[in-house]
Parts: sequence; structure tokens; C-alpha cells
Amino acid sequence: MGFHATILTLYPEMFPGPLGNSLAGKALEKKIWSLKTYQIRNFATDRHRSVDDTPAGGGAGMVMRADILAHAIDDISSLEFPRFLMSPRGLCFNQAMAYEIASLERATFICSRFEGVDERIIEARNLIEISVGDYILSGGEIAVLVILDAVIRLLHGVIGNVESQHNESFENGLLEHPQYTRPQIFEDQEIPQILSSGDHRAILEWRKSQAEAITKVRRPDLWSTYQKKHRKT
Amino acid sequence: MGFHATILTLYPEMFPGPLGNSLAGKALEKKIWSLKTYQIRNFATDRHRSVDDTPAGGGAGMVMRADILAHAIDDISSLEFPRFLMSPRGLCFNQAMAYEIASLERATFICSRFEGVDERIIEARNLIEISVGDYILSGGEIAVLVILDAVIRLLHGVIGNVESQHNESFENGLLEHPQYTRPQIFEDQEIPQILSSGDHRAILEWRKSQAEAITKVRRPDLWSTYQKKHRKT
Repeated sequence: MGFHATILTLYPEMFPGPLGNSLAGKALEKKIWSLKTYQIRNFATDRHRSVDDTPAGGGAGMVMRADILAHAIDDISSLEFPRFLMSPRGLCFNQAMAYEIASLERATFICSRFEGVDERIIEARNLIEISVGDYILSGGEIAVLVILDAVIRLLHGVIGNVESQHNESFENGLLEHPQYTRPQIFEDQEIPQILSSGDHRAILEWRKSQAEAITKVRRPDLWSTYQKKHRKT
Repeated sequence: MGFHATILTLYPEMFPGPLGNSLAGKALEKKIWSLKTYQIRNFATDRHRSVDDTPAGGGAGMVMRADILAHAIDDISSLEFPRFLMSPRGLCFNQAMAYEIASLERATFICSRFEGVDERIIEARNLIEISVGDYILSGGEIAVLVILDAVIRLLHGVIGNVESQHNESFENGLLEHPQYTRPQIFEDQEIPQILSSGDHRAILEWRKSQAEAITKVRRPDLWSTYQKKHRKT
């Protein structure tokens, strides 16, 4: 089974990149996930292998052509839904979407470069625009690395201890509570005493109150959603 | 001059990774930016070179030790402020922060792995927690790639046409308007006629109204901020 990613890009050499190391790299070796990249330029139709052209109506930069992307999408027989187009205008990728994607067997990721892609391809090929944050990257490639990294660690067999996934930021709508480990005293600062109490219920309560406090201060947006859900004031 | 990134990580081999290609790769060759990585494990003090330990109070996963990170931070003489700690609990990285970081000469990025770092190091060494989005990555490394990619393209000399930076998503608080390029007709869909009118003012107005419409539908959060700023209804 596992998860298979099909990636359309002008820089296939960027993959698997950092996903070839660490957790994701081991999971790749174990075939828990796999990927195949396609060079978009191979689907160009002129001898210069052009994939982009100047924006209609003028302006800076270059726009990726709808017809070339259509050739690529139609020619790749293994290309399946959902087809994500990396775009700062897209749906905001978050932890809930990471779980959704991890539950699929396969997905396609299309990386634009330049000023973006010709709008007409999006509807014509049912592309889902997806964004990893409110900033501009030089292309979609690093955004795909982000999504795959977040997805891969959720796949069965990647993280030994499943519990560690359910105790972290966003899992319950809160940022994570502070963590401590040995040494007991670091530069005159002790680990909070409650954590050495052995009283598991009290520790859980303390961690929850810390998570609530930090979320309230740092992320009023998440806090407001959490309050509505839990009717807290 | 240029921008220098100091990176503390357990996976130095992940850098420059995808930033060695394309725009960022060319800028690296031209010395517009540079990076130096440090292996955190080299600052461990026992013969197993351990950098983490179990969480105080119990729970899954491992926590990166404050004392080992302190050794690393204090030993690296070139390590300078601001010192960013990649963390899903951090400040949300966005385009405005990309400009801020691009205006600095240097910055340090600390990548945690495991369940996070011992809370005590954050205040003790003035670390600024920073997050690239509301999802959990397997470590801070890909988050650093995101930040550097967004920053590097803003450095002087990286993108030929500076205009292209001022016409895109988030620059004016809106998502970007749709883009079109040749062919004029793609699968029965024509490029909107206004873009062939040659009337530059009308084209600008059209693009702005499109950008407003798409932002209103897709990102009520950005739209609300934009409305307050522009007193639109």
C-alpha cells in the first residue's frame, strides 16, 4: 500500500531532497511512501522547450502555459486525483489536511514557477490550489516538500510511538505545552516540580492549562476557535 | 554584503538541498547569500553523543536537551542575533517577516527534532520561536528551507525584474489576480478581452477587482484586514 506522490516540476532534481534523510528517508527505503517526478519541460512542443510566456495584458515575470501543462497532465497515465497545484492563493494546508492526504493512496502535486500558471488550466483539469503559508516562494517545490514531510510522518509505521502524534500542537486545537528534560537544573532553572510529582492526572491538567495559556497569548485565532468548541471563557 | 544564514541541525546534509538549484542556487554561486551548518550532535558531552532525553513528567517522544543546545549556541562564535528556533508554537512567518529578515545581514536558525526542545533554553538564550504554518513537520529543517527561499528571492540581484515582486499575493494584502498567457484560445476558453485592450488603467482596475473578489471568497481573514485598511464595504 503506502502513499505515492506524483510530482510535476521544472526541477525534478530537488526531490526527494531533504525527504531522503531522517524519518522520511527511512520510510522511503521501507517503501512506506514513494514518489515519481516528471519534468514539465519534456511536454513542451517547440524546439526551445518553452513552458512559459509573457502575461496577457502586460506586467512583470512569465506565466506558465495552460496548453503545456495540459499536455503533461493528459500524457501521464499514472496521474491521479487529487491534483494539487501549489499556489499562495490556495487552500491553507494545515494538520487536518495532512491527515486527509495521508489517508489517500496517491496524490499529484504540480509545481509552478514564474508568476504563476495560466488560470484556464485550473478549472480545465480540476486542479486544487493549495498553499503552505502567507509568503511567496520561488516555486512550488519546497511547498511540496513541506506537505510530504507533514504527511509522511502520519503514515503507519513511520513514527514508532503513535502516542507522540496525539500530544502535539494543533492536534487538539491548542499549541503544545512546554517540554522539559534532564538535567533537573539548567542554569539555576529547575524543571517545574509538578512534573516530578508522579501524579499523572495533575500533570495532564497542568500541561493542558499551560497549552491553553500559551495559545491564548500567541494565537488569538486558534484560541477563539477552541473556546467556541469547549465553551470556555 | 549579502545575507548569511547560520544553521544548527542534526541533519546538515539537508542543506542547501533544493536551495542549491534554480534562483537560490544561482544566488548562492554569486555569493548573494551564504550558509554554514553546524551539527548539534558535535556539542554533546557523553560518548554516545546524546542530544535528547525523555520528557519530564512522562509522555511520548524525546526532548532536545537545554544544556547541549546551550553548549552549541555558546561555542559557535559566529552565531548572531536574531536566533530563530523553528517551532509550530512560534510567530507565524509571513511575507512581511520575509522582508524583515531579508533586510538583515545575518540570522541563525535552530532546528529541533523529536517532541521539541527543553523550554528553559528559549529564554536563557533569547530564541525567537518561528512557525511556517499550522502543521507538524518531522523537524525544523524544511521550515528553514521555506524561510530562506522566501527571503533569498527578495535579496538585491536575485530576481531581475523587481516589479514582479510588487505584483503578487500578499504584497498589497490581497491574493494575486488571475494570470493568462498565450495561446489566445485554450480549449474554447479565450483570454479575457480586457487584457488585449491596451488600456493599461482599465487592465489595472480589472486585475484589482479580480484580486479583491478572489480574496473575499477564499480568505475572509485577509479580506477583513484589507477592508479595515481601505475602508471598503
